[in-house]
Amino acid sequence: MAKINGNYLELQGSYLFAEIAKRRTKFMSENPGADIISLGIGDVTRPLTPAVVSSLHAGVDEMSNEKTFRGYGPEQGYDFLIETIIEHDYKARGISLEKNEVFVSDGSKCDVGNIQEIFSQDSIVAVMDPVYPVYVDSNVMAGRAGHFNPETKRYDGIVYIPTHAENQFIPSLPTQKVDLIYLCYPNNPTGMTLSKEELKKWVDYARDNKCVILYDSAYEAYIQEEDVPHSIYEVEGAKEVAIEFRSFSKTAGFTGVRCAYTVVPRELKAYDESGNAVALNDLWNRRQTTKFNGVSYITQVGAAAVYTEEGRQQIKQLVDYYMTNAKMIRDGLASLGLEVFGGVNAPYIWLKTPNGLSSWEFFDKLLTEANIVGTPGVGFGRNGEGYFRLTAFGSRENTQRALERINKLSL
Amino acid sequence: MAKINGNYLELQGSYLFAEIAKRRTKFMSENPGADIISLGIGDVTRPLTPAVVSSLHAGVDEMSNEKTFRGYGPEQGYDFLIETIIEHDYKARGISLEKNEVFVSDGSKCDVGNIQEIFSQDSIVAVMDPVYPVYVDSNVMAGRAGHFNPETKRYDGIVYIPTHAENQFIPSLPTQKVDLIYLCYPNNPTGMTLSKEELKKWVDYARDNKCVILYDSAYEAYIQEEDVPHSIYEVEGAKEVAIEFRSFSKTAGFTGVRCAYTVVPRELKAYDESGNAVALNDLWNRRQTTKFNGVSYITQVGAAAVYTEEGRQQIKQLVDYYMTNAKMIRDGLASLGLEVFGGVNAPYIWLKTPNGLSSWEFFDKLLTEANIVGTPGVGFGRNGEGYFRLTAFGSRENTQRALERINKLSL
Repeated sequence: MAKINGNYLELQGSYLFAEIAKRRTKFMSENPGADIISLGIGDVTRPLTPAVVSSLHAGVDEMSNEKTFRGYGPEQGYDFLIETIIEHDYKARGISLEKNEVFVSDGSKCDVGNIQEIFSQDSIVAVMDPVYPVYVDSNVMAGRAGHFNPETKRYDGIVYIPTHAENQFIPSLPTQKVDLIYLCYPNNPTGMTLSKEELKKWVDYARDNKCVILYDSAYEAYIQEEDVPHSIYEVEGAKEVAIEFRSFSKTAGFTGVRCAYTVVPRELKAYDESGNAVALNDLWNRRQTTKFNGVSYITQVGAAAVYTEEGRQQIKQLVDYYMTNAKMIRDGLASLGLEVFGGVNAPYIWLKTPNGLSSWEFFDKLLTEANIVGTPGVGFGRNGEGYFRLTAFGSRENTQRALERINKLSL
Repeated sequence: MAKINGNYLELQGSYLFAEIAKRRTKFMSENPGADIISLGIGDVTRPLTPAVVSSLHAGVDEMSNEKTFRGYGPEQGYDFLIETIIEHDYKARGISLEKNEVFVSDGSKCDVGNIQEIFSQDSIVAVMDPVYPVYVDSNVMAGRAGHFNPETKRYDGIVYIPTHAENQFIPSLPTQKVDLIYLCYPNNPTGMTLSKEELKKWVDYARDNKCVILYDSAYEAYIQEEDVPHSIYEVEGAKEVAIEFRSFSKTAGFTGVRCAYTVVPRELKAYDESGNAVALNDLWNRRQTTKFNGVSYITQVGAAAVYTEEGRQQIKQLVDYYMTNAKMIRDGLASLGLEVFGGVNAPYIWLKTPNGLSSWEFFDKLLTEANIVGTPGVGFGRNGEGYFRLTAFGSRENTQRALERINKLSL
């Protein structure tokens, strides 16, 4: 008799976005003509840049010709893309990587979701709260999260580390034993970053305790300030303890194109039952070669164009466009007296709801009084209660119109 | 302290292709000018068809325009592709499916590798021998295979069902309890098929024993004979017990483009610890929405072009090209007195090695005397010993040249 993976039954419904959709639909049915502006979802809206578009066309043409057609490519990605990633994203910042340390994939969500497979089933997982839900859910599915406690609204097997205005969104080191630590900087949902000094504390902690840090850096391209680390490998010794995830999704508008990469340094080890060190690079390589078949050649040609001189200028314009939105939102909300976080090195603005409103109360207020949809902070975890996320990914026009509407609210 | 998933240590080295590469390299270094023809790897060589190419270009153009740009798509795939899949691949054969029963993905290898996640860790897995290695390895990684026995060359936790010339490559039903059954038809590596009557035995067995059949049908497009089932759902009751995997890789030359789909019928159930039936469709949907982010929009537009009238004609020509190769190889080898299987409804020819040679002895003979690289059958499992796989995916010219060389061998 076929039995299911019972851990799936511990998953909580994807309450957040279902509830948002429900409230939005209800409002629309009661207000049929309403012109709703969404600053909720973390998805780009600007088209692909010309350098990428012309390379994608060239890739398609190569695949149409017998002489240049390519079938299965390397599961790890083509050298031409890996070499340019290393050159521009790492060597340019003084970090050296070998080609076999970079694994091209079809998305950071996939890699971040799959990476836990190479670790033991009894690993203790630490996440920040608020948190990107995939870190938690992928471990629930694998049986590492224990039971969900409806009172605490937390899994009893996960270690949650709070970040909020009171600690300046700087997480404290764990006070109990953990094995795997998910860090996301620039952060989704808060839009905040960690300084190199703060990041060093985590690297040192991981080295002292033989932990592995899973460092999600999908929003790296949005870093504007000089002193914010772009890679965890800027911290000495990080290659011994950290896997880094990067994506073309937000960097180059690839959310609908699908390309990302993951760095697993050769120095990085974890331990078998007998305490022998095993290279995680070998395990991830085995995982990817067994259960993955590489990214579309056409897509990889398009991704490589991001690094040409023309490509980099266009990407910078793209990021500038969204970051101008972010500044408008930040400044606009701050001028109304709201407490605003993020939005300086990330496309997310994390605001404290006014007058002690709950996240959902503020959601309803924005929806009904300004016809704006955002994301209630509590949807990302208990410590998100009383916060609200707006994104800078809308069009300039919609961002402006949304701010004008918020300006007219009584907050 | 971070510990590894110890099950990975039970994986055997990917001995087969490493050993092939090693012997080939050695031969090349000793015979620098040798003109080697590869009929080994199961990868296509013909370019994408014009209908697909023009749709891919159109998809790229849509992504370059603000008005038609698409960001994140549905993790399950776009309706336009799912609807056309259902219409042409199923409804045309009298099988009705709902849109939420089809999940578009970036490859059958991914889906076949990931599907085991939704089943309990103590599931007993049955595979045919010889077998496509991903079925076994993905279960080894999940801890379902037990230990590898170097003497039997098998995992002690896997149920192996032999297929060979003596049983006409028709597998017998399991004689011990199993929960999950991997079937692959048209078969890789043997190129053989099952009749509807034989397939019905498996469906009935699965219904009687509440098993789930994982039906890999990646080579469906190569079926030429009238009475060979194209889908397991042609068998009554199969929707209650079977998941079906299909791919554009071999159908339309998409090995380097990456698109496939998996059908998980709503009727299909497995059981929780208390014996309650749970819809596997819900679990797979949750798996994909949590750990996958959909296939490139551009790729999905290209895949949909496969089903246009023009597209279908071009795909038929593509399949005919390879199947003409297959017939040439079959007939050529048979005329030399070799026992030949497959190659009628599949692009693989599975031959019995002459004069009792082992798979590797025949490999060496073909390599050194005819400069042809194929795949030793024993690499797919113990019952592959004494067999050898050739593929029809080469160019016409190379296939012809290879046959001329084999013709001159003393066999």
